Amino acid sequence: MAANVQDTIMLFGDSLTEMGSEAGGIVQRLSAVYKRKLDVLNRGFSGYNTRWAIPVLEQILAKKSEQANLPAVRLLTIWFGANDAAVPETHRQHIPLAYYTDNLTKLIRLVKDPSSAHYSPDTKIVVITPPPVNTEQWAEKKATMDPPDNQLDRSFEATKAYARAAKEVAAREGVEVVDAWTVLWKAAGEVEGQLSQFMSDGLHLNENGYEILYNELISVISTKLPELHYEKLNDVFVSYRDIDYANPDPSLQKRKA
Amino acid sequence: MAANVQDTIMLFGDSLTEMGSEAGGIVQRLSAVYKRKLDVLNRGFSGYNTRWAIPVLEQILAKKSEQANLPAVRLLTIWFGANDAAVPETHRQHIPLAYYTDNLTKLIRLVKDPSSAHYSPDTKIVVITPPPVNTEQWAEKKATMDPPDNQLDRSFEATKAYARAAKEVAAREGVEVVDAWTVLWKAAGEVEGQLSQFMSDGLHLNENGYEILYNELISVISTKLPELHYEKLNDVFVSYRDIDYANPDPSLQKRKA
Repeated sequence: MAANVQDTIMLFGDSLTEMGSEAGGIVQRLSAVYKRKLDVLNRGFSGYNTRWAIPVLEQILAKKSEQANLPAVRLLTIWFGANDAAVPETHRQHIPLAYYTDNLTKLIRLVKDPSSAHYSPDTKIVVITPPPVNTEQWAEKKATMDPPDNQLDRSFEATKAYARAAKEVAAREGVEVVDAWTVLWKAAGEVEGQLSQFMSDGLHLNENGYEILYNELISVISTKLPELHYEKLNDVFVSYRDIDYANPDPSLQKRKA
Repeated sequence: MAANVQDTIMLFGDSLTEMGSEAGGIVQRLSAVYKRKLDVLNRGFSGYNTRWAIPVLEQILAKKSEQANLPAVRLLTIWFGANDAAVPETHRQHIPLAYYTDNLTKLIRLVKDPSSAHYSPDTKIVVITPPPVNTEQWAEKKATMDPPDNQLDRSFEATKAYARAAKEVAAREGVEVVDAWTVLWKAAGEVEGQLSQFMSDGLHLNENGYEILYNELISVISTKLPELHYEKLNDVFVSYRDIDYANPDPSLQKRKA
């Protein structure tokens, strides 16, 4: 069994999170800078919306009664909305905006409400807003699917509204936010077609898009959660240069990151 | 706290493992294919040798008495030797070959010996041999360090001997082996200078080197440990296509990968 040696960063979300373990993705970038300090857990579930996220979060976070020996979640990112915002006519993943707001609030309170079985006051939460959709690029992708799918199931304006709602929920609940929608929209010069620089298919990010997201997340950590910046954390085991060569074992005891 | 939802693959080693979380590295490649199935833990410690690895492994694996709720280690890779093989005259990381063999044996038995406090019969072990050294490339790298270091602290023949010893230990202990030394040497056409295609600095692998290692590891898993191939494992939570839209919660219970 893996001992409880490193605390964790848990990235919880839909395909935008799940694909983050690819080279250049958000999970990979965080794993590289937090190695030897915190384990970065990919808890991304392609196609999931906030309704389905609730029973999943209840299972991937330990109950208070189960917490002995388990690694703490120092940082939890919650990144849903890309599927919730699917247009209702074509898509069973759609969640109406008011329910999306409710569900996102429930996810946060599962961690932050002292009466929750999963209450974890030391877990910092960052809500990530869904990125803007490049509908032309997404339509092209769907047309090349087998069989071709010509019904456009995302809209630019809908995702914009869900991103705004996510930001409002984070503010109301007193947790941090990484506004992926806005940083990507600005990076694209506020031109929908220009988003293709940052997206693999109009819905998902490519390496450049993940780089912008990563930089924004590190910037939010630096200013709002500085104690969690990787430069502020110890390696759990010392650098080999700090090992006492004559009597190594005492210097090789794990420390808190 | 992070619940015990996904079992793990633990990659234990020196800088060759630690750097594997970079884009294209061994940790990243495994993380991408095992996502939603097993968590891939980077337990790489730059500069460490097998002597220092022993007290560390005792801490990163749970004792039998602590195992409740902790994720199982389904696969443990042990990849040391690059520092043990440093030339004795210049280097405090050096471990004589006979001690390297002993230490590697101890690391394996920590998991496989029924009398060990860390005994874990279901953990599969893969020993990875140290890769060949490109001494010319490594000398160049050291000359550019600040201050320049002109004493060559690795030798091609020494690392070759340590790689052979690692292979012999694995065979004797009845665990699997990924012979990184041989696959990289063959890929370089058995010409030391050609190793630069696969190495960042003559000692460490670049993306191409990690790709060869990854392919060899997946090949060993396919043939020797097929039950651990990612294609044989379930996603812990179902695909969104398999969620019962009318009554989602029963379909959203976690499963064994």
